[in-house]
Amino acid sequence: MAETPIRFGILGCAEIARKLARAIALAPNAVVSAIGSRSVDKAKTFAADTGLPPSAKAYGSYEAVLDDPDVDAVYIPLPTSLHRRWVTAAAEKGKHVLLEKPVALSAADLEEIVAACEANGVQFMDATMWMHHPRTTGMRAFLSDGERFGQLKVIHSTFTFAGGPDFLTNNIRVKADLDSLGALGDVGWYCIRAILWATDYELPKTVLASREPVINESGVILSCGSTLYWQDGKVATFHCSFLTSVVQDLTALGTKASLRLHDFAVPFQENSALFHVTSQFSSPLVSEHNVINDLPQEALMVKEFACLVASIKGNGSKPDKKWPTLSMKTQLVLDAVKASIDRGFEPVEVLSPLFATT
Amino acid sequence: MAETPIRFGILGCAEIARKLARAIALAPNAVVSAIGSRSVDKAKTFAADTGLPPSAKAYGSYEAVLDDPDVDAVYIPLPTSLHRRWVTAAAEKGKHVLLEKPVALSAADLEEIVAACEANGVQFMDATMWMHHPRTTGMRAFLSDGERFGQLKVIHSTFTFAGGPDFLTNNIRVKADLDSLGALGDVGWYCIRAILWATDYELPKTVLASREPVINESGVILSCGSTLYWQDGKVATFHCSFLTSVVQDLTALGTKASLRLHDFAVPFQENSALFHVTSQFSSPLVSEHNVINDLPQEALMVKEFACLVASIKGNGSKPDKKWPTLSMKTQLVLDAVKASIDRGFEPVEVLSPLFATT
Repeated sequence: MAETPIRFGILGCAEIARKLARAIALAPNAVVSAIGSRSVDKAKTFAADTGLPPSAKAYGSYEAVLDDPDVDAVYIPLPTSLHRRWVTAAAEKGKHVLLEKPVALSAADLEEIVAACEANGVQFMDATMWMHHPRTTGMRAFLSDGERFGQLKVIHSTFTFAGGPDFLTNNIRVKADLDSLGALGDVGWYCIRAILWATDYELPKTVLASREPVINESGVILSCGSTLYWQDGKVATFHCSFLTSVVQDLTALGTKASLRLHDFAVPFQENSALFHVTSQFSSPLVSEHNVINDLPQEALMVKEFACLVASIKGNGSKPDKKWPTLSMKTQLVLDAVKASIDRGFEPVEVLSPLFATT
Repeated sequence: MAETPIRFGILGCAEIARKLARAIALAPNAVVSAIGSRSVDKAKTFAADTGLPPSAKAYGSYEAVLDDPDVDAVYIPLPTSLHRRWVTAAAEKGKHVLLEKPVALSAADLEEIVAACEANGVQFMDATMWMHHPRTTGMRAFLSDGERFGQLKVIHSTFTFAGGPDFLTNNIRVKADLDSLGALGDVGWYCIRAILWATDYELPKTVLASREPVINESGVILSCGSTLYWQDGKVATFHCSFLTSVVQDLTALGTKASLRLHDFAVPFQENSALFHVTSQFSSPLVSEHNVINDLPQEALMVKEFACLVASIKGNGSKPDKKWPTLSMKTQLVLDAVKASIDRGFEPVEVLSPLFATT
């Protein structure tokens, strides 16, 4: 059943785009058909370096990728401040959109992005790779198992890495005009998504930012934390930072057991990943669960996205609303954390996602 | 060098006293010489069950233990509300005091306890067993190593267990007249001590309790959390609870590496314990460190305490002020968390320990 692969265009030669070029090559239902950069030479170099197929075209502009009829979908790893412009442009050209996180500068920004995709009938998905790892499915089954896990009460997540002097001076993620949400948008995005994932995407009612964020002279967050409160008493905390060595922890505490992992966003191993279950009601107290994946999680993400696109192209299916809804919920919490910081660490209500409930 | 062992009296037949009776037997420089209970039969049963030496006396009152000239030191596992009375009585009889945690109902209560010990020249130590594990020493060396760990920025600790319906109804730790601090005093004590330990006992300047503590109808905390803030920007969070399955995690994030362990208070194994170091600057990313202990940590605690007592008895040394100071610092933070809860989750300044600085 050799289906026609979904043809991807990539907008920009960001470092992360190299990983995605490989992921698209690995996914059985996807192929890179174009790379666009503001410099055609950079695009050509990218194509050569990442081993794009000879059929892939290298363009000296993003517009050219969007104008290419051999492009079904675009992967957009541009700085966040450019997302609205380029997603809108892509959607208007009928291109499906796989968008690097953080997806938007704010929920309002994201509403426009999602509206553009909806208006043009194209699939939207954010590039949160770990969502597509089979470990995530395995952990979901565990958290949903009332007999084994009980009721979810507390979640804690940490994602940090030490950016170092060059990163903290020059990286786009510390520039107010490019990625104004800094560490909150970058690694904090993963923490918030993981917390929402653990609650099966129930939004917290209130968010209270920790009182000691580190903010650079341009106002970009380098380190921050927050507590999230749910109506039913669930509590979550997270900490995200560019200032301490790499940690990517997720812990979920249930009445009967707890779940933890230490590589939730980017697994230590490419083809298998662990999670740990601790329960005072079973023996051994701690059990280790190893989940094998046949493809790297980023290739599984591409595969899933391409599958949705193929279904729209081939069968006239509607775009799956699950993905923009998850992006919006994540963004709403992120916005509330930012608002709590901006308002001097006051509790901030998390607003309902307007479009997600329609 | 067969020194005379330090002779312990135990006040009360609490469950934890069984563990200590064994620890005293295992420690090379200690022996149980008396057990006192309000019921002499219970004391005799305890002596038989725990295999106390034939020379050990079983008394039908605590006073009798304190009056026994063959008792050098007492281990007091009584409910917290009784600590001041019995520590004071013990100190006045010249008995050294190993006191179960939480040590006091408040810093003011603890000041009286410590003052009574100081006035009578007896050693005071709280029974925080993990402090005496060689793993703790190994981790301290790592945290103090600027080359490997860098600068401490963030700490997170969780200690919870699922008490279950009987515990939540009947245990002394949920009774306002016995252990009014509930989960905060019990498991929260360990979290706070671990956080202070990680900072080398630098007190935070401010404490802000999490907004969703669970409190029973008698006003006893069953579950709570807090964020702690230091002058230099360090931040710690902790969560303690009787309501979710057992977790005892400690994570310390440094600029160059992080430390974590999942059994910080009671190691999974009795004779060895692990800690994990993660660093983006070394290979492998995660390294596991296994520390062997020749005696269980509670026996090492007894050994250390008995050593201090022997030094006072034999050489006329003064009691070591380190231990009451650590107790007081822990209590001050605990009090601040409680105050923050009581004041509707306002930030609370942590007061300086008056006696500890003298």
